[in-house]
Amino acid sequence: MTPEQLDASDPLARFRDRFALPEGVIYLDGNSLGARPKAAEERLLETVRSEWGEGLITSWNKADWVGMPQRIGDKIARLIGARPGEVVACDSTSVNVFKALAAAISLRPGRNVILSEAGNFPTDVYIMQGIEALTGRQVRAQLVQPDEIEGAIDGSVAALLLTQVHYKTGRMRDMARITSLAQESGALVIWDLSHSAGAIPVDLTGANADFAAGCGYKYLNGGPGAPGFLYVAQRHQNAVTPALTGWFGHAAPFAFEDRYEPAPGIARFLVGTPPVLGLSALEVGVELFLEADIAAVRAKSIALSQLFIERMAPLCARWDFQLASPAEPGERGSQISYRHPEGYAIMQALIARGVIGDFRAPDILRFGFTPLYTTHAEVAAAVDHIDAVMAASEWDRPEYKVRSAVT
Amino acid sequence: MTPEQLDASDPLARFRDRFALPEGVIYLDGNSLGARPKAAEERLLETVRSEWGEGLITSWNKADWVGMPQRIGDKIARLIGARPGEVVACDSTSVNVFKALAAAISLRPGRNVILSEAGNFPTDVYIMQGIEALTGRQVRAQLVQPDEIEGAIDGSVAALLLTQVHYKTGRMRDMARITSLAQESGALVIWDLSHSAGAIPVDLTGANADFAAGCGYKYLNGGPGAPGFLYVAQRHQNAVTPALTGWFGHAAPFAFEDRYEPAPGIARFLVGTPPVLGLSALEVGVELFLEADIAAVRAKSIALSQLFIERMAPLCARWDFQLASPAEPGERGSQISYRHPEGYAIMQALIARGVIGDFRAPDILRFGFTPLYTTHAEVAAAVDHIDAVMAASEWDRPEYKVRSAVT
Repeated sequence: MTPEQLDASDPLARFRDRFALPEGVIYLDGNSLGARPKAAEERLLETVRSEWGEGLITSWNKADWVGMPQRIGDKIARLIGARPGEVVACDSTSVNVFKALAAAISLRPGRNVILSEAGNFPTDVYIMQGIEALTGRQVRAQLVQPDEIEGAIDGSVAALLLTQVHYKTGRMRDMARITSLAQESGALVIWDLSHSAGAIPVDLTGANADFAAGCGYKYLNGGPGAPGFLYVAQRHQNAVTPALTGWFGHAAPFAFEDRYEPAPGIARFLVGTPPVLGLSALEVGVELFLEADIAAVRAKSIALSQLFIERMAPLCARWDFQLASPAEPGERGSQISYRHPEGYAIMQALIARGVIGDFRAPDILRFGFTPLYTTHAEVAAAVDHIDAVMAASEWDRPEYKVRSAVT
Repeated sequence: MTPEQLDASDPLARFRDRFALPEGVIYLDGNSLGARPKAAEERLLETVRSEWGEGLITSWNKADWVGMPQRIGDKIARLIGARPGEVVACDSTSVNVFKALAAAISLRPGRNVILSEAGNFPTDVYIMQGIEALTGRQVRAQLVQPDEIEGAIDGSVAALLLTQVHYKTGRMRDMARITSLAQESGALVIWDLSHSAGAIPVDLTGANADFAAGCGYKYLNGGPGAPGFLYVAQRHQNAVTPALTGWFGHAAPFAFEDRYEPAPGIARFLVGTPPVLGLSALEVGVELFLEADIAAVRAKSIALSQLFIERMAPLCARWDFQLASPAEPGERGSQISYRHPEGYAIMQALIARGVIGDFRAPDILRFGFTPLYTTHAEVAAAVDHIDAVMAASEWDRPEYKVRSAVT
């Protein structure tokens, strides 16, 4: 079938119109910042005009601002195979990773290693190293090569922190198998779902997961810098005294008592006052996903990425691109990456043509496939653009070699 | 002069129209949630429609999302007497208090006490207690009575955490004197400016302050759950390895290295991806303040609160209200509180009349005065409403005695 025919029979095609996408742009960077759901504008206006402007302080109750972290958390839970009361939407992903790591360490007092892989998303690794410093090196942050993880799990490991879908390559870890393996050694596992939630079917309950954290502004389309989320399995919640003991995690925040008393359940992992504007936009993105069948999302994600790989094959031979993602669809998330020594400049030339992916040092071009709004025709056209950029050496300009603050 | 005459000669009167306030409401709760600047709507629409919707990922550079925490921090710095490069806008107030406390402790390794007063704003105290638990009680969180603070500062104190303006009573601490006293004992001081920034003139540089944190959604009018801010004196910045070591505090966040390397200066205190929507609204609130003369703000704040106290005096005798704030304007911030055993129900009856203050357990009615939008006429009318509520026992209804989730 042609890309156009595939689009015509796409069961998710109706979602495309729910997003505001600029004319003339092929957006393949929803893995970094999701596109804007059209409804986000109206919802934010409602929050700003009516809830903030008219309701003022009374909106904490009347508009249930106070319940947003749990309400949106419960909606995210449905996307990641968690149960109601196991997820809160709050803080940044980084802060949530900190909470999960600190919680895991507190549950494994005799063990002094937190383990991850070299090349994991930097913030995860940095948070580990920060905890090492914070504990006066009583806890050690250990990085091993990706294929050495399983062998490194031993009785000293308190917590294993892994990203399910790797941010550069899209490689997907077997969550159930690794969780089980770690738990057999007595370790706890923290899954970073930043490139999973909304991208692939996730089953935290099925995997008997301990902790997870993730991002609201990527596949969940929650808006720039959207709040992240934190999952804590029900069995661990009341056993943990959180490391970040802010008033919104208190058993009675409005009793204004002098003594910290953690709220029962997932609420104890809240810290400060909820970021209402960010949560408002995030809720729209999450709700949109709840209308879609995640199995259909996954099927289309694979179709889009297979089409991309197939069309890119001749370009790899012609222009020296190297596939950096697993060729097997079952082993990756919803992005495809290629290595090229001129990757940065090539991406700038593509962006100038309206094909927006991104670049990750040192040489990775990333293309994200977001089934709610990416079409097969766009994927095919993107490859034509890449071919054209290479054929005319459009990337070979000085201005495309100056790195921006954010790549 | 009558309240109307005072309003007619008010040099800040022109700011009233810059805020969207509902008809028929006298809003005396800007100390809890600031009113909405009209410009916030347009600014958020711009961020959502154009920057997110059209610019998508490129807005990190093109709209300088990446620079927002420092840019807005520098604007807040002008309101609190800090220098450029000493403030960042990010995370919640609670998370920023955690960062400041952890930093202070790391700078005073031989000392094991963090000190505050009983009845301080709960999240400050809870964060202290969380750090006590996190360090395995190597650091002790000590609370003393408000008037015992100065006597409790000794060589064991690593950090003193005080709120400059008390959330219940409005009592204002002498920042310069206490900072100096603590520093003479070798302690560091963390000032919580949640009820100061935008309410009173603050001079962190003049006080030789060490650390401060504060709130964006109260007097700064940054919107519900707005990001907070963190101040770290320049002299301390590079001496601290932050406790929360997220990627946005890295020296080269987009180099994606495996080793944490703190950014030079205030940027190292950033953690996760900046909350762009919340920061957008916050910037509008802060910018509005930069147009006003803070001395004029203070003068009007005192005029409003003195008018309130004067008009309330006969009601205190008549209805058993007790002034809970210092009578001397120089000793308080921009709010006036009264105690009354039926405080909760009375506040509900006032809110039903459109006079919005708030209640703090066990018996405090709080009224905040926000000189950019509160008029003298409103203050006088509010007192008339209170008198009417008491005269007709309007508060004495069962539904006014059922506490909401948020008070």
